[in-house]
Amino acid sequence: MKILVLGGDGFCGWPTSLHLSDKGHDVVIVDNLSRRQIDVLLEVQSLTPIASVTERLMTWRELTGKKIDFEFLDVAKDYSGLLTILKKHQPDAIVHFAEQRAAPYSMKSSMTKRYTVNNNVNATHNLLCALVESGTDAHVVHLGTMGVYGYGWFGSAPIPEGYLSIKVDTPEGEIAREVLHPANPGSVYHMTKTLDQLILAFYAKNDGIRVTDLHQGIVWGTQTSQTSLDEKLINRFDYDGDYGTVLNRFLMQAAIKYPLTVHGSGGQTRAFIHIRDTVRCIELAIAHPPRRGERPVIFNQVTEIFQVKELANLIAKVTGAKIEHLPNPRFEAAENQLAVDNNHFLNLGLNPTTLSQGLLAEVRDITNKYAHRIDRSKIPAKSEWRQGQLHNLAKPRAKKANSHNKAKKLSTTTKL
Amino acid sequence: MKILVLGGDGFCGWPTSLHLSDKGHDVVIVDNLSRRQIDVLLEVQSLTPIASVTERLMTWRELTGKKIDFEFLDVAKDYSGLLTILKKHQPDAIVHFAEQRAAPYSMKSSMTKRYTVNNNVNATHNLLCALVESGTDAHVVHLGTMGVYGYGWFGSAPIPEGYLSIKVDTPEGEIAREVLHPANPGSVYHMTKTLDQLILAFYAKNDGIRVTDLHQGIVWGTQTSQTSLDEKLINRFDYDGDYGTVLNRFLMQAAIKYPLTVHGSGGQTRAFIHIRDTVRCIELAIAHPPRRGERPVIFNQVTEIFQVKELANLIAKVTGAKIEHLPNPRFEAAENQLAVDNNHFLNLGLNPTTLSQGLLAEVRDITNKYAHRIDRSKIPAKSEWRQGQLHNLAKPRAKKANSHNKAKKLSTTTKL
Repeated sequence: MKILVLGGDGFCGWPTSLHLSDKGHDVVIVDNLSRRQIDVLLEVQSLTPIASVTERLMTWRELTGKKIDFEFLDVAKDYSGLLTILKKHQPDAIVHFAEQRAAPYSMKSSMTKRYTVNNNVNATHNLLCALVESGTDAHVVHLGTMGVYGYGWFGSAPIPEGYLSIKVDTPEGEIAREVLHPANPGSVYHMTKTLDQLILAFYAKNDGIRVTDLHQGIVWGTQTSQTSLDEKLINRFDYDGDYGTVLNRFLMQAAIKYPLTVHGSGGQTRAFIHIRDTVRCIELAIAHPPRRGERPVIFNQVTEIFQVKELANLIAKVTGAKIEHLPNPRFEAAENQLAVDNNHFLNLGLNPTTLSQGLLAEVRDITNKYAHRIDRSKIPAKSEWRQGQLHNLAKPRAKKANSHNKAKKLSTTTKL
Repeated sequence: MKILVLGGDGFCGWPTSLHLSDKGHDVVIVDNLSRRQIDVLLEVQSLTPIASVTERLMTWRELTGKKIDFEFLDVAKDYSGLLTILKKHQPDAIVHFAEQRAAPYSMKSSMTKRYTVNNNVNATHNLLCALVESGTDAHVVHLGTMGVYGYGWFGSAPIPEGYLSIKVDTPEGEIAREVLHPANPGSVYHMTKTLDQLILAFYAKNDGIRVTDLHQGIVWGTQTSQTSLDEKLINRFDYDGDYGTVLNRFLMQAAIKYPLTVHGSGGQTRAFIHIRDTVRCIELAIAHPPRRGERPVIFNQVTEIFQVKELANLIAKVTGAKIEHLPNPRFEAAENQLAVDNNHFLNLGLNPTTLSQGLLAEVRDITNKYAHRIDRSKIPAKSEWRQGQLHNLAKPRAKKANSHNKAKKLSTTTKL
């Protein structure tokens, strides 16, 4: 199959491209290297020493004999370039990772909020528009997020895969319907994925575009069997306050013998998936496209559920690190229930990598191995979820006599 | 009250600005004149001879002594200009009409689809972002559309005002919730208003922005008591295939003694409101802001419901015109039920202008009076809802022996 991977140089995109190439697909990466450029602006870098795209692709070809093409393109900005690429490659499937994907980064400033909305909405809409205009009948596999749902909607009922069964009272009696699950995003980034859902649904209905939307949990782990083949193929590992996931930040803190910083009570419950399972899910989604005219197929791409404090305890156990609690910059419930229906992928044969199986390798092969590359100043989260929030968190508490301890902890973190 | 009207030079924006000024508010129009510029590109003009903004505002000042300021700005593109305007004027309320508002135009080409999404999403998001950044506590009154709901969801149950009461089965038994009504937009334009809803909801929740979203029906009528004061204050009247509403096109066809062209069976049922009631609703919405921290308040801004064929019959009766049926370019149900809850505005004292009361004045004072300005070539709808659609409608039918009649009618229309 001919497959375009938009955003194929990024954290999920790169291992997906290699995995699909390894499985015999003809893969083309379309990327504007925005993730690397954001690193430059944030003055951070991947813990792992990632090679340039050119080096990556040459190494892959040398090792496997397989060729992956690269097209440098900003999907959100260069519509005519996108049209040209579609006509040139005539893909059977397009994996769409070409979106700004960090919630804290999306809340950092007006600039990053506006960039996230503008980039993500226009990337998705340009793609669909260009498929219609060029008459390309490609299956679109879009990366959504579990965060579109929000938390705590319906008690202990598992979050269904995209569509919710509801009942409504009408003059004709109770009517049952299946509707897109109500949205309650927790950041501008998550919000853009709720917008994507509606755009995808419209183009599926109006133009018959075949769409699979994957509501992914928090991805952990760095390597797949393909990226492990050579250090020049290594995947990125983000640990900074903007792009590092909670798990990666814990692992980094452990590696440099720092306390694991839990924001709030640690009662926040989230869904997780290993990057090895991400790439396998994409492969399964491509192999099972919806029919033309069908509404978007939505899968929950998650394999395990943990509370943040459970994660911290697990990592503390493996690494011997201590745990420290800090105020939470996010506007979210201190505790939440979470159960998720993920039967689609399990039924298609996904055999998940669990945290207890994979954690030790991650510590040994990534965080301990590359600990010398850490920039300690980049670990704390600095995005304000609301205007003036970090300011408010720091100042008033320092004035109170009984909060010296908390104020001290905050400033300790600032020095980290 | 200090009120900014974004898009205050447009069809709804202009009479709203005059109405609010007339009621004693301090009004500032913010507009990039995009509607006039689109007229230039479409090679059409308002049936009514609209004056320039400068003439309009000078005339209003001369007649009433009231001053309306004008700021030339593209809200979707010039974020720093928007910030400057917010800081300069410190508005109490902002009426947000700064969106591309024609469904057929939004379906015309990839360019117009992309412009509509890019402009509407970024205008709304820039506004909210700038309110947060500048710390402006202004009530946002956003113009949505009845089209966000779609049609035929729940039998004869009236469409509620924004939020739907649902029941969901859970392990703890049935749980009742109120959720944003599911969306089913019929065009890219309508889709952008479903995106706006989610953006507004996020900023209301995360940043405490006070939002009223008005899901308006199809607006008819041209003049309000203020725009009637002088011909230099006259409101625009669009009749072209892109911007003319179904009612306006019928009125034009009647004025030039042409048959009223009903697309499809005419069984499509839609909600309507007179422009005089639009401006009064905006005034009522401004006078009743939600509390800070409340979810967006959503009102259905409609007063009457008609089937398209009922409209045609009514206008045929008043004007003596004939009726002709043509294929429908839109991808929509041939017939639909529609009942709408509009109690909020009725309870706030709205006293609607009905079609049977207002139609004759519209024919006498607008379409007959300015009939000499008509460009007949601009009346037919030319937007394709789906790629290759008009082509498909015209070609295969002409080949069939039994469809000469329809093919002839199509070509008659083309000559119109």
